[in-house]
Amino acid sequence: MKKKIGVGIIGYGTVGSGVYHILTAKAQKLSTLAGVDIEVVRVAEKYPKRMKGEVPSTLITDDAYKVINNPDIDVVVELIGGIEPAYTFIKAALENKKHVVTANKALMASRGGALLGLAERNGVDLYFEASVGGGIPIIMPLKHCLAGNTIYRVMGIVNGTTNYILTKMADEGMSFGEALKEAQAHGFAEADPSADVEGHDAAAKIAILASIAFNSRVTADKVYTEGITGITYQDIVYAREMGYIIKLLALAKADEDGIDVRVHPAMIPEKHPLASVAGVMNAIFVEGDAVGEVMFYGPGAGRLPAASAVVGDVFEIAQNIHLNKFGSMACGCFERKKIKPVEKTASRYYMRLEAEDKPGVLAKISKALGDSEVSIETAIQKNSSGDRAELVFGTHLVKEQNLQKSLKKIEKLDVVTKIHNVIRVEG
Amino acid sequence: MKKKIGVGIIGYGTVGSGVYHILTAKAQKLSTLAGVDIEVVRVAEKYPKRMKGEVPSTLITDDAYKVINNPDIDVVVELIGGIEPAYTFIKAALENKKHVVTANKALMASRGGALLGLAERNGVDLYFEASVGGGIPIIMPLKHCLAGNTIYRVMGIVNGTTNYILTKMADEGMSFGEALKEAQAHGFAEADPSADVEGHDAAAKIAILASIAFNSRVTADKVYTEGITGITYQDIVYAREMGYIIKLLALAKADEDGIDVRVHPAMIPEKHPLASVAGVMNAIFVEGDAVGEVMFYGPGAGRLPAASAVVGDVFEIAQNIHLNKFGSMACGCFERKKIKPVEKTASRYYMRLEAEDKPGVLAKISKALGDSEVSIETAIQKNSSGDRAELVFGTHLVKEQNLQKSLKKIEKLDVVTKIHNVIRVEG
Repeated sequence: MKKKIGVGIIGYGTVGSGVYHILTAKAQKLSTLAGVDIEVVRVAEKYPKRMKGEVPSTLITDDAYKVINNPDIDVVVELIGGIEPAYTFIKAALENKKHVVTANKALMASRGGALLGLAERNGVDLYFEASVGGGIPIIMPLKHCLAGNTIYRVMGIVNGTTNYILTKMADEGMSFGEALKEAQAHGFAEADPSADVEGHDAAAKIAILASIAFNSRVTADKVYTEGITGITYQDIVYAREMGYIIKLLALAKADEDGIDVRVHPAMIPEKHPLASVAGVMNAIFVEGDAVGEVMFYGPGAGRLPAASAVVGDVFEIAQNIHLNKFGSMACGCFERKKIKPVEKTASRYYMRLEAEDKPGVLAKISKALGDSEVSIETAIQKNSSGDRAELVFGTHLVKEQNLQKSLKKIEKLDVVTKIHNVIRVEG
Repeated sequence: MKKKIGVGIIGYGTVGSGVYHILTAKAQKLSTLAGVDIEVVRVAEKYPKRMKGEVPSTLITDDAYKVINNPDIDVVVELIGGIEPAYTFIKAALENKKHVVTANKALMASRGGALLGLAERNGVDLYFEASVGGGIPIIMPLKHCLAGNTIYRVMGIVNGTTNYILTKMADEGMSFGEALKEAQAHGFAEADPSADVEGHDAAAKIAILASIAFNSRVTADKVYTEGITGITYQDIVYAREMGYIIKLLALAKADEDGIDVRVHPAMIPEKHPLASVAGVMNAIFVEGDAVGEVMFYGPGAGRLPAASAVVGDVFEIAQNIHLNKFGSMACGCFERKKIKPVEKTASRYYMRLEAEDKPGVLAKISKALGDSEVSIETAIQKNSSGDRAELVFGTHLVKEQNLQKSLKKIEKLDVVTKIHNVIRVEG
């Protein structure tokens, strides 16, 4: 008879129910491939009624410690999300020498280093493939398959909600508010959408990816973050005229001066592979010195895609238990690189201004830009209503602090009536 | 002191020199992450002069058995390609209890099952990430991260040479011959380009992917294969008019009747993620019941991309030796599914004919199609020179055998002067 690996699930929400479903429906295949039987032994859920008719009553509990302290459980799957009580649960499970699989991006992006250290000291593994990119395999390929590379850059669309909103705005000419309502109606956005639209969800994910890519711990609070609430349809139209698509980009670059890690709306050339990532899809682009550029694309969220990633982790751990191996997904942050403050970063920028429509205006603005060492690549003047003109500038690569300096000067110009928007250009 | 893992390389060509370069340049990082030192102990090459000035002379040999029988070598990296002597070398290495890493698609697609079995019986691992998709991580993600899925379909652009040729034809209006010459001038195609342009290289790669995806061995000779030599610029133009891009597609689908596995030119909707894969880039699209659709994109060939994949495998094995675990990449073909003959497969088709430009022609052709149960979705008539018209048909999903039947009928029609091309529509 085959050895049995006991799995306990904490949290039977959307992803938890998907994980339970896959582990039961695919039990035979997984057993054949892993060399051990993988069996769900217990499912803990605060609202156990959710499980009715889906999970045998003998497996159901409302007490997470019935999972954490269960001697028949080898792998604890944490799917409640958020910092607490998830942190306490995972900590207790690791201290009980249970392997842990989690989809918890907020937790991994804030206390991932501590938890991975705790796992290592207890001789168990902590896997978190589902914390970034939903069903897309990204963490294992980055940690293992690309180990021979020095990674220069990780860049991606890692939040489905905002990508859905931006796609709706672009394709159907909706305002941000209209597109957000649509996203909420389809269940792609929460009633309180701030974690998504303000960029915090994406910041957690890029913190996790940057930590792996650069072997140096990055936490979410160190990520410079701007959301998409200020993006208008007009910006999308001008972007398109200039050959760009606007996306909420999560980006991390490393060089000898440190790590530049940020989340903000960005214009991406329309021929760039990320530009065609539409709706709730996600994609992560990795640039390394050996591999060049690779991209991983797929559904960034959803019950079964996220469950697919969780089950992949459970499978891996089960096989590792069978083969008597642990530690292959341990923390690889053996360096301590500093995070660049955003002022020290450099980008190309798009800038949309409203100004008086009279001679000399362009010269005044150009001077303000030039005086701040902001070099203009393209300038487009649009005649809007009456005595106002809309001016769109594209800059060469400039330092963020110079850009900010130029904006202060432009604000003070009496001919400029409004700075509509400033968006970075990447790719 | 850390344990040392000895690596021996057989074949110092393009990829071999890249692997040697990465393993030496990144020795420290790899050691820190793997927990063991990874050291190249010996490099065997038929033309040892190639290594001059790059590899210390004490490491150089022209005898592969100096690698295979070397007691200081734990991992043998085979990079000579082709069936023999690669098969004999790998077999001997596995029998000597050496782990093996190979980039050899032809060998893995013909004798992969036997070699993986041999590795298992000897308690060692055989890794082959670089055999498909160059630097793109695909084999490990498919085998491990997506283990919880039942895979329905694997579909991709897995040959850079033909994709470069088709991209040149599409973007610059070149003929196949002109684009091939361009590819040869840039080193993207061999002097004898047949393995690429006839689809055999892609057939080996899809055989490898299908074996993993469906847990059932598929060899290259079972793959229905058509190349791109018959594609003309005119087909590309019509495809574009209908909203499609022509690509050399490698495709494998599985259902209860067996595995449908083929390589042929196909039209792909221009909004499909595969459509934007241009030049020598590769992309592999995987569809599973849990994850939905994921795509892996990157450079499909080249010295350092392929070396990146090889080094990822070496890293993995070194870490496994350190952690005392083997077998996680063992053969997963625990089923024996049958391969569908191409006549039993179904596709949508594009068909371009030349016919006499007179009343009743369309009716005759439509009847020939209808009589063979080929249902037409779109029909476009182009007036070409003089008394000839060009007719372009798009069909609904039809059985290959019905399509062939209809073509025989159409050939016999006196009003039809030429069947220019028939191309499958996928995606």
